Amino acid sequence: MPIRAAILGPTGYTGLYLIQGLLRHPGAELTYLASHRETLPNIADEFPQLLGQVPEQVAVCRPIDPDAIARSADVAFLALPHRAAMSYAPVLLDAGLRVIDLSADYRLTEPALYQKAYGHPHEDVKNLADAVYGLPELFRDDLPGAMLVANPGCYPTASALAIAPLLSRSLVKPDGIVINAASGVTGAGRVPAPHLHFVEQNESFMAYGVIGGHRHQPEIEQTLAIVAGRPVSLLFVPHLLPIDRGILATIYLEPASGDVTQDDLLEAYRDAYRDDPFIRLRKDPPNVKHVRDTNFCDLCVRLIPGPTPRVVVFSAIDNMIKGASGQAIQNMNLVFEQEETAGLL
Amino acid sequence: MPIRAAILGPTGYTGLYLIQGLLRHPGAELTYLASHRETLPNIADEFPQLLGQVPEQVAVCRPIDPDAIARSADVAFLALPHRAAMSYAPVLLDAGLRVIDLSADYRLTEPALYQKAYGHPHEDVKNLADAVYGLPELFRDDLPGAMLVANPGCYPTASALAIAPLLSRSLVKPDGIVINAASGVTGAGRVPAPHLHFVEQNESFMAYGVIGGHRHQPEIEQTLAIVAGRPVSLLFVPHLLPIDRGILATIYLEPASGDVTQDDLLEAYRDAYRDDPFIRLRKDPPNVKHVRDTNFCDLCVRLIPGPTPRVVVFSAIDNMIKGASGQAIQNMNLVFEQEETAGLL
Amino acid sequence: MPIRAAILGPTGYTGLYLIQGLLRHPGAELTYLASHRETLPNIADEFPQLLGQVPEQVAVCRPIDPDAIARSADVAFLALPHRAAMSYAPVLLDAGLRVIDLSADYRLTEPALYQKAYGHPHEDVKNLADAVYGLPELFRDDLPGAMLVANPGCYPTASALAIAPLLSRSLVKPDGIVINAASGVTGAGRVPAPHLHFVEQNESFMAYGVIGGHRHQPEIEQTLAIVAGRPVSLLFVPHLLPIDRGILATIYLEPASGDVTQDDLLEAYRDAYRDDPFIRLRKDPPNVKHVRDTNFCDLCVRLIPGPTPRVVVFSAIDNMIKGASGQAIQNMNLVFEQEETAGLL
Amino acid sequence: MPIRAAILGPTGYTGLYLIQGLLRHPGAELTYLASHRETLPNIADEFPQLLGQVPEQVAVCRPIDPDAIARSADVAFLALPHRAAMSYAPVLLDAGLRVIDLSADYRLTEPALYQKAYGHPHEDVKNLADAVYGLPELFRDDLPGAMLVANPGCYPTASALAIAPLLSRSLVKPDGIVINAASGVTGAGRVPAPHLHFVEQNESFMAYGVIGGHRHQPEIEQTLAIVAGRPVSLLFVPHLLPIDRGILATIYLEPASGDVTQDDLLEAYRDAYRDDPFIRLRKDPPNVKHVRDTNFCDLCVRLIPGPTPRVVVFSAIDNMIKGASGQAIQNMNLVFEQEETAGLL
Repeated sequence: MPIRAAILGPTGYTGLYLIQGLLRHPGAELTYLASHRETLPNIADEFPQLLGQVPEQVAVCRPIDPDAIARSADVAFLALPHRAAMSYAPVLLDAGLRVIDLSADYRLTEPALYQKAYGHPHEDVKNLADAVYGLPELFRDDLPGAMLVANPGCYPTASALAIAPLLSRSLVKPDGIVINAASGVTGAGRVPAPHLHFVEQNESFMAYGVIGGHRHQPEIEQTLAIVAGRPVSLLFVPHLLPIDRGILATIYLEPASGDVTQDDLLEAYRDAYRDDPFIRLRKDPPNVKHVRDTNFCDLCVRLIPGPTPRVVVFSAIDNMIKGASGQAIQNMNLVFEQEETAGLL
Repeated sequence: MPIRAAILGPTGYTGLYLIQGLLRHPGAELTYLASHRETLPNIADEFPQLLGQVPEQVAVCRPIDPDAIARSADVAFLALPHRAAMSYAPVLLDAGLRVIDLSADYRLTEPALYQKAYGHPHEDVKNLADAVYGLPELFRDDLPGAMLVANPGCYPTASALAIAPLLSRSLVKPDGIVINAASGVTGAGRVPAPHLHFVEQNESFMAYGVIGGHRHQPEIEQTLAIVAGRPVSLLFVPHLLPIDRGILATIYLEPASGDVTQDDLLEAYRDAYRDDPFIRLRKDPPNVKHVRDTNFCDLCVRLIPGPTPRVVVFSAIDNMIKGASGQAIQNMNLVFEQEETAGLL
Repeated sequence: MPIRAAILGPTGYTGLYLIQGLLRHPGAELTYLASHRETLPNIADEFPQLLGQVPEQVAVCRPIDPDAIARSADVAFLALPHRAAMSYAPVLLDAGLRVIDLSADYRLTEPALYQKAYGHPHEDVKNLADAVYGLPELFRDDLPGAMLVANPGCYPTASALAIAPLLSRSLVKPDGIVINAASGVTGAGRVPAPHLHFVEQNESFMAYGVIGGHRHQPEIEQTLAIVAGRPVSLLFVPHLLPIDRGILATIYLEPASGDVTQDDLLEAYRDAYRDDPFIRLRKDPPNVKHVRDTNFCDLCVRLIPGPTPRVVVFSAIDNMIKGASGQAIQNMNLVFEQEETAGLL
Repeated sequence: MPIRAAILGPTGYTGLYLIQGLLRHPGAELTYLASHRETLPNIADEFPQLLGQVPEQVAVCRPIDPDAIARSADVAFLALPHRAAMSYAPVLLDAGLRVIDLSADYRLTEPALYQKAYGHPHEDVKNLADAVYGLPELFRDDLPGAMLVANPGCYPTASALAIAPLLSRSLVKPDGIVINAASGVTGAGRVPAPHLHFVEQNESFMAYGVIGGHRHQPEIEQTLAIVAGRPVSLLFVPHLLPIDRGILATIYLEPASGDVTQDDLLEAYRDAYRDDPFIRLRKDPPNVKHVRDTNFCDLCVRLIPGPTPRVVVFSAIDNMIKGASGQAIQNMNLVFEQEETAGLL
């Protein structure tokens, strides 16, 4: 019996890649596309690449009706804006569905932190307490049987996977970490805006957002604090790249002591990710192009000697796959205790 | 005394390139930016590349006040949407300004044709009759002293310059002409729209518009009919290129007879454009990249023998310069009897 | 038992997409990568995206040893330059392998035509006579059990699929066809050259090659002559697009008579491709982005009335998939009488 | 009398932008293009955009003949590879020419440092001692009348202009500076190479070079040590962007003390660059697109509080203009005591 999957909010980019991933998945079946639009679109009109790919009765979006969804599906992926996600999750859970939320609503465990980052109170504190943070390489054991999974942000995925092995083995200092990151434009969503016009982004490169105040910073700090067993301080600066997809994080840390060697660093990653099918350690700095359309996170670490020695880590993912929809499917596989890589290689 | 120039509608892409062109022009001065926005922007906030470039008293846009404009300027460039242009042109003309209109409002000489193409009646038929079509290479003599210039469309510029020498010398048949053209995304304007999102256009290529019914088709036919001295029929199919700027028209015609030679074709262009500083004849098909940021139109012609012989002409321009703002400045130079190339080389 | 597949010449772009396609294929196994380089590369050093994807014993390329290949594989894909392909095909066939040749060597059935197009005589006329032209939508019945398949060129695939239904039903004239086509840069191959430098192609667009004399023109004419049952004359003009992958052919034809209607055209395509899983008929002109990474050919047809009526057909494929490696796998499926779509949806 | 200018090595990208800059310059004349190629090219064949732009007698390159150059020119721009530059500079200087060297040969004042970075000894130590480092915003007073100017590297220009005001005012610590920089592909030169193929760079992003060991790092350290009056340590990590032109440096520093305020930072830049026509201070992080085709360096500074406070500086230039050819012309203007901005606005 395949896992029957519904998607709420299928008309954004994460929706598209969820659809494509589920269509390819040998053990899952896409059964319901739920849209909050007044005029319910045929998904192949929204995404012409899907023409003829989605069974006709599924392709026409239906309303967000939790009971109807629960009759058709075992799991609901929320590809909704934040705030909308937590308005639907409780009823979907009550209807008996597993929920994998790709929004930010269940990522930060502290409601106060959520309110500070997103500007409004958390409205589902009860389920927030039970949500599992779905970064399998760090928290795989929490996933089997989980009812509600908070799928991590794209930058937090690239960053936490890059830094965790160093912090958990105390090879670097937990303060003063700098994460210089760059993302393709799919990361900015699909809603038109002046700065997302082709002519504004093409041949362009810049930092964006409130420098030092991006919403993904507390999420990264939260994950790393768990890994490190103590608070971690960092500065996160995102940039926008004139490409469709991909995140590269270039991360600067201070070695914990003068005794740390390049071999210590390499061994930390090999050890940490020994059994992780989606982590690839590279000798040379990775390129976002080489992880495109894959669920891989490519990592490279370098110890740079000098008066102020540094550890530099490079981390590349496809922001739409390992940074969103691929990781959501990886989480689904683990929740339903299927092969972790099913549909993803 | 420099020519004092005002721009109405400076916040679109043609506005930007007019501003940059006028700032560089040794014999012109930018004196007035007139916007119909409720909140009048500083142009350097709209276009960060202009920071520090425009004198502060000009940089802050002012309302569209024809009298104030007439006190400050000798010429008004209309970089407005069609229909808006013809609502302002009469009063600007009455106030004593020369007007160079970059919209479509004064390009088609027949009001009925205008109504068919643009879906509403022409509202300034009186001035329409006196407007000069500002394609200097074909109609240079009309420009000195002209009061109202209709600046040609981008596709019509590339197309008419490519075809005129062949039709005026009867080297090709006036029927069955095919214009396969492609434009960079600036040609679609600056207003955000779903299909202009970076992710939709990047790595993309397609035809667009009503195939065979694009508004530029009657404009091209009108110009070529004048040149040919008889009606001309053609099919125009535009495509959208994932680049900022540039138009390439690849044009297919039938030789008028089996006697036409490649030398006849070359001689026609050499002769037609002997004294035209912005036409470059090339041995090889031109590349839009090689005319970028210039007012050149690069042309290449080839006779292809075979059972159905063809003449193929390639025409490349920068759609924002020779296809809009550069040609507008070329027209200004000619209207005010300055050096045609001033500010443009 | 999976089909065991070898690739000769895996270090070009068609090699890459063959490898990726075979790794995903549920009924095939990649067993041998054969390179003619002196220093045999690990394919994951050539293509960093393949790191960890190809079994280690296969990833290291081996010499082109026909007997060793025949022991390891049932089918050999030739992703070699033309001329090299026909030097290996005979020995591979003699060793008992099926051969699917992605080069041009077995596409033109007339040796004289080959010599004219490629500048040297054909060196394997014997096998040329038996080669099957692997365009399944037109010649599917020839494929089951075929020993040697000539995989069509990318432009000929997009063009022939677009035109065949019209010619086979005599809806258009067989003369004076114009194919205006544009390809992404993967179509130019992977060997560095000045004109393939990023800076030369980025923000660029132009026609290339000998206008009217491209090597793909006789291949298209040959296929269409079979379909039409009489000689066909056409003009093919290729352009280079600043994108990685995709071909768009915009094709201009003359209706056979004034009686042809838009419905006749639509019905011709519906009828011709009723059972073809990789043809998609579209209401609007297709975009190369919407077929990227797929084996689809998206088609749209329009009758344009006027003094010189025209039929315009738009055809979009991924030049690396339906235009090369995907079609090669489709051919493998048919040769070995597997499901035609296996590994391709 | 205009300054007569020769270019040695005009067929690279810096050569192209020197030619275009000199053609636009009201007080300079391009008189000689000197190439070391065996077959001397017409520059318009190398760069089709120059067709008709360069006077015919100059467009055809001539041999590198110092005496002939000295008869035709007052100043020689060396757009040659490093090592070649220092083989020609002495004879050009002896022939009486001013020399502005765009290579790396005269940038590092210590011959030993040069040998370490470039792998071979310096071969013109005599002139090295007299060379002026042509970064006008920091060393303007050295330029009038200078015989030999070392034009700074692109990354060092963007980096030193960003950091100097902070170090000279002791607002940041001189150690542990991190420069995360990204450049367009013109920065990699025009010689074809596998990694510069369009398909490899398009939709791509990665760090490159020996991390922490790039040749530009000692050049940046040298300049900043002069400014700071003491040694400076930093880590420089370059990335390659899929765009033609532009450098963005994102720089992380530690405030010198807890007393430093955002206003102190702003005041430092305002004060340092009060009279510099090519420095623009921005409220928001700059975009490389907004300095394209200009000689501007756009800067933005931010104090980020927190457990480990940081100063972040963003610096954007056009790597071909302020990072190479524009700055070379700015230096020419200063050497010949012309208006600093001549030909550059």
